[in-house]
Amino acid sequence: MTLNALAAVTDLIGPQLAAVDAQFRQELTSDLKCVGTLVRHVGRFRGKMLRPCLLLLTARAVNPRAEPTADHVRLATVVEMVHMATLVHDDVLDEAELRRKGATINHLRGNEAAVLLGDYLISHSYHLCSGADDAAVGLPPQYASRLVARTTNRVCEGELLQLDNRNNLDLNEPTYLDIIARKTAALTAACCRLGAAFAGADAETADRMEEYGLALGTAFQIQDDILDLTGDPRDVGKTLGIDVEKGKLTLPLIHFLRTAPAEHRALLRSLLTEPNPDKAEKIRNLILPGDSLRYARDRARALVDRARSCLLDLPDTEARHALDAMAEFVVARAE
Amino acid sequence: MTLNALAAVTDLIGPQLAAVDAQFRQELTSDLKCVGTLVRHVGRFRGKMLRPCLLLLTARAVNPRAEPTADHVRLATVVEMVHMATLVHDDVLDEAELRRKGATINHLRGNEAAVLLGDYLISHSYHLCSGADDAAVGLPPQYASRLVARTTNRVCEGELLQLDNRNNLDLNEPTYLDIIARKTAALTAACCRLGAAFAGADAETADRMEEYGLALGTAFQIQDDILDLTGDPRDVGKTLGIDVEKGKLTLPLIHFLRTAPAEHRALLRSLLTEPNPDKAEKIRNLILPGDSLRYARDRARALVDRARSCLLDLPDTEARHALDAMAEFVVARAE
Repeated sequence: MTLNALAAVTDLIGPQLAAVDAQFRQELTSDLKCVGTLVRHVGRFRGKMLRPCLLLLTARAVNPRAEPTADHVRLATVVEMVHMATLVHDDVLDEAELRRKGATINHLRGNEAAVLLGDYLISHSYHLCSGADDAAVGLPPQYASRLVARTTNRVCEGELLQLDNRNNLDLNEPTYLDIIARKTAALTAACCRLGAAFAGADAETADRMEEYGLALGTAFQIQDDILDLTGDPRDVGKTLGIDVEKGKLTLPLIHFLRTAPAEHRALLRSLLTEPNPDKAEKIRNLILPGDSLRYARDRARALVDRARSCLLDLPDTEARHALDAMAEFVVARAE
Repeated sequence: MTLNALAAVTDLIGPQLAAVDAQFRQELTSDLKCVGTLVRHVGRFRGKMLRPCLLLLTARAVNPRAEPTADHVRLATVVEMVHMATLVHDDVLDEAELRRKGATINHLRGNEAAVLLGDYLISHSYHLCSGADDAAVGLPPQYASRLVARTTNRVCEGELLQLDNRNNLDLNEPTYLDIIARKTAALTAACCRLGAAFAGADAETADRMEEYGLALGTAFQIQDDILDLTGDPRDVGKTLGIDVEKGKLTLPLIHFLRTAPAEHRALLRSLLTEPNPDKAEKIRNLILPGDSLRYARDRARALVDRARSCLLDLPDTEARHALDAMAEFVVARAE
């Protein structure tokens, strides 16, 4: 996101983002000191608040006449908490040591604390969600609770499918896209649907905003996977090269294994399967000269364009422009 | 539970227990094959269905004129799923290899699969819970969802408090009781409250049933801790001696460290802190001759009596007798 676009977002939903931040902290207050210590640490992982921004901006974009409500703030806090829980458990799965330039919970306090803290965050997010007043905006009972739970189901399924395909060098592009649609894009899609539905959007608009979130989230994950391969850890602020270390095939590698000359493909296959201290660097050097990275970037770009096209029927407001800028930001970011 | 009492329970709530079993399986059906394999394996851990029994029997006991409803079955499935999720994550924390005479998920499929499967179970339980019709029985909106989420919060807090006290040889009895009230008894208490509330119980009866569940759950955990120390793994069907291996002080040990002769206490402290292949057996041989096990059994017995006293104002029905028998079963069981 350019500095200008970021400033526009802060102007548009600044008070609500501050309220999300306060609610996040307040909800996780515990009478137990040991819980407080862990929760404070996880607070440091919070960065762009992409998911709360998506939810709040969607609310404004579909209904420019009204400010986002207290339930929008509540649900924005819920999705941020769900996201934090998945980060904490992801770091356990990845044995990652670094997250947003700080030590991960598992690295600092052990896997046990990280497993439990993730559980604690997720159960708090459900508790907070179950306070939403669905009926007040004409939604069916427990609309938000059901949607959030269904979404976390999909996130878990995506993670399990990814785990099942570890070290599967024959992973194809449709399965890769299915994995990231579930594990990443399901949540951004839910953010946009919740923002729209709780702003009184009609069914068609809510569907289109969900589609925006799904395309944006998928592009986001492809970009994340590209950065894991090409990024500078000093910029990105987290352990890189994890995908290849963990036997996760991502889009550039899938493309390479499908299209590169036979001897290059054989080399990548042996690099991926054999233990090697410089595995990530060697793979990077093999991939960089070809067009597999460009292929992945093009796919992400096409998804960003699809996301942006979902906004065209919305009223021409600053909130819509901010959503447009967020879609661009997803592929422009270096971290 | 004696065979007679067990048969009585099956007669009383047999159809509902069968419905819980069917709903458990149906809810966890996934279009992903890899998810199905894991879910089928976790199905094998299911044993006594203590928590669904508590919920369904409470429903019958407080309102003998009506059968348990579809929402009772739904919520009984929810609590069983929550319980399964905690078992799966507990086995990760404990690095346990055996559960109900079968390999644990973490032992069989790795910690990653176990973390994700636990997440999958918990998110499914919330999804199922969010379908309960609270208004139909005059309860506030999302009564069940809030109660279940608040309960899982407490379970996580109990686990975190326990983790924070690993290898704390000065753990005192009140903190131990606080840990087990949260990590174990909060869920059995919630079962009884849900059973009562969804059967139309008044506030006072629901409170008393929650108290029954809390006392029963606390006694259950004390008995579990005693069995971890004294049980025969062939009977109990799970890895034993884990508590001392993992530096968890339980009631017999806490009592011993408070009351045994100074040289015995010093011996236990060194056994607990120093690496030793026969740690569990040596500790068992040190504890058995003293009165610390009896002290723990007496505490459990007093809690069972307190639980049973909560039933006295209920109508004299078979369901009440079954709840009475379940309280007895908690301390009588060898597995």
